[in-house]
Amino acid sequence: MSFGIDDLPVRDELRGKSPYGAPQLDVPVRLNTNENPYPLPEPLVERIAERVREAARNLNRYPDRDAVELRTRLAQYLTDTSGHAVGLANVWAANGSNEVIQQLLQTFGGPGRTAIGFEPSYSMHGLIARGTGTGWISGPRREDFTIDLAAAERAIAEHRPDVVFITTPNNPTGTAVPAETVLALYEAAQRAKPSMVVVDEAYIEFSHGESLLPLLEGRPNLVVSRTMSKAFGAAGLRLGYLAAHPAVVDAVQLVRLPYHLSAVTQATALAALEHTDTLLKYVEQLKSERDRLVRELLAIGYEVTASDANFVQFGRFEDAHTVWRQILDRGVLVRDNGVPGWLRVTAGTPEENDAFLDAVRDVKKEQRP
Amino acid sequence: MSFGIDDLPVRDELRGKSPYGAPQLDVPVRLNTNENPYPLPEPLVERIAERVREAARNLNRYPDRDAVELRTRLAQYLTDTSGHAVGLANVWAANGSNEVIQQLLQTFGGPGRTAIGFEPSYSMHGLIARGTGTGWISGPRREDFTIDLAAAERAIAEHRPDVVFITTPNNPTGTAVPAETVLALYEAAQRAKPSMVVVDEAYIEFSHGESLLPLLEGRPNLVVSRTMSKAFGAAGLRLGYLAAHPAVVDAVQLVRLPYHLSAVTQATALAALEHTDTLLKYVEQLKSERDRLVRELLAIGYEVTASDANFVQFGRFEDAHTVWRQILDRGVLVRDNGVPGWLRVTAGTPEENDAFLDAVRDVKKEQRP
Repeated sequence: MSFGIDDLPVRDELRGKSPYGAPQLDVPVRLNTNENPYPLPEPLVERIAERVREAARNLNRYPDRDAVELRTRLAQYLTDTSGHAVGLANVWAANGSNEVIQQLLQTFGGPGRTAIGFEPSYSMHGLIARGTGTGWISGPRREDFTIDLAAAERAIAEHRPDVVFITTPNNPTGTAVPAETVLALYEAAQRAKPSMVVVDEAYIEFSHGESLLPLLEGRPNLVVSRTMSKAFGAAGLRLGYLAAHPAVVDAVQLVRLPYHLSAVTQATALAALEHTDTLLKYVEQLKSERDRLVRELLAIGYEVTASDANFVQFGRFEDAHTVWRQILDRGVLVRDNGVPGWLRVTAGTPEENDAFLDAVRDVKKEQRP
Repeated sequence: MSFGIDDLPVRDELRGKSPYGAPQLDVPVRLNTNENPYPLPEPLVERIAERVREAARNLNRYPDRDAVELRTRLAQYLTDTSGHAVGLANVWAANGSNEVIQQLLQTFGGPGRTAIGFEPSYSMHGLIARGTGTGWISGPRREDFTIDLAAAERAIAEHRPDVVFITTPNNPTGTAVPAETVLALYEAAQRAKPSMVVVDEAYIEFSHGESLLPLLEGRPNLVVSRTMSKAFGAAGLRLGYLAAHPAVVDAVQLVRLPYHLSAVTQATALAALEHTDTLLKYVEQLKSERDRLVRELLAIGYEVTASDANFVQFGRFEDAHTVWRQILDRGVLVRDNGVPGWLRVTAGTPEENDAFLDAVRDVKKEQRP
């Protein structure tokens, strides 16, 4: 036996674990990680090169530690698209919303504290909880993947978590959470003990409904997290951000690594924000493709979870992993999130979606003897 | 009173704390954060723009999660400059060596575990320990800032830390740690319990001595951490890395945030690595300027700590902070690291160093009535 992880003095809870991450396979049609299928438009690519060239001339210096220009532009974007005014002091940014969540858990969770999420949901919430020593509580969802408010309130009252995650639209199910439910959960959480409620809106731009940003008004323990990975078509950029009361922004700075956001990241994100209008047009296209996927999957005879995101959960399968493999054999990579009976497909380009629909039609046919 | 951090349910140990970071002041001569004063050469700036343009065309996709090309090039650089062969499997990279250290502490430290550093040293070691719930032990140094091996061994035997930090050259003092001391501390740490020893070589390229990379041979619990911030003149890039046994690289992947290194960061770092030879020429220039600073400071009548880094610790002052302010009043920003009686100046360009030397000569004169 060669020397391996378990021969090192790693923490006990890491023993036997595997790194998180979908298989990065070389497949013609990749619809597995909710990426935006549209490459950035060429004028934006040029603008990125230009802004990064400028930043590179000063690369021997540390970046702006507080990312003031970037946070100001992100605040402007949120204000413009939600109608709820937020400013620099309300916004914080980090390397992907994963790092935003990690900073929140380092500040408000951590050893001796707990966080709850309503599962199945974005599995990184629980994994980052583990990584920050925060106890993880798996809260309930209904069979149809909506949040059962009464059951959720009971879970909060029983466990008195320090951090409550609400993902809307939810990943991997696509389910939107109504504002009233979020409000009720916020109240339930505050009744249990002073605690933070984090609304993860990574996919909000694809929703039929509105952002919950206006709920921030008068609720200093509420946080809305966002990302440029999906609507901005910039998964490779790793830029996540949050909006909240300025005190929350001050608080996460106690745990953020200094100069965590590189000058090239800031420059690239600023370039993308200059092209918001163009990028949001792709979002409209993806929403209509998402709706088409729902319709066609139903027509083929699959069950589908109502989706407000750029992906669709479909099923049901006795053995979802086998079906995942059958679709892969047809050149299309979808995601098996481990939700029993279900798979998830990202809305791609019309051509990619056609390829996916052909593949699942074919798989369906094979199943009927 | 307005609503502030202490009105939020932040962790108790964060209450009353301030974010880490030197003042970012707008001053003609900034010699306070050990930045490389030389901007990247224009051909490299162009190459960065080119590489980033290419990466931006694929920015809608997640980056290579394992950063294979970048880690391969970093391994090549380490092999070329140290004569000790390391490969892809030995190298891991993250957003600054701070994130490398954070990942190491999440893996090998954390709640219920402890880490030790020999202080004064790089204060982020202790701060990241706090941020990861790792208990922090302040180990001793001699009056002259070298490590007292017997005292250090006693501290390790007494506290049995899970992680031992050895910074060489040390920041903020500039002190190199001999290989024999590192070896003895490694042995002492293993005698106490299986534990990781992290050699922080952020400034090693400026040293009179050699890297300790060859010590990795046969020592799976040893880690050497590095950065592109200093020798590569790329503080704005935020690229840190480590070399260690492949099992260590496997282990940190259990806690790393997936896709933590953006495609633009990977592209920029790869461009810089293509220009290693040019960048290392600046290092030679800075070493000779560092030696000049030492000579001139001694000539002016200051005490100086022997330096193997791109900065010099000088003193002694009854009230170092007042002298810091007096130097700042003369347009030169140096660093008050809170080491009683001492200040730290980064080696800048010859012109910047002249301005600094003029300022401290002037301050010295004023002190002699």
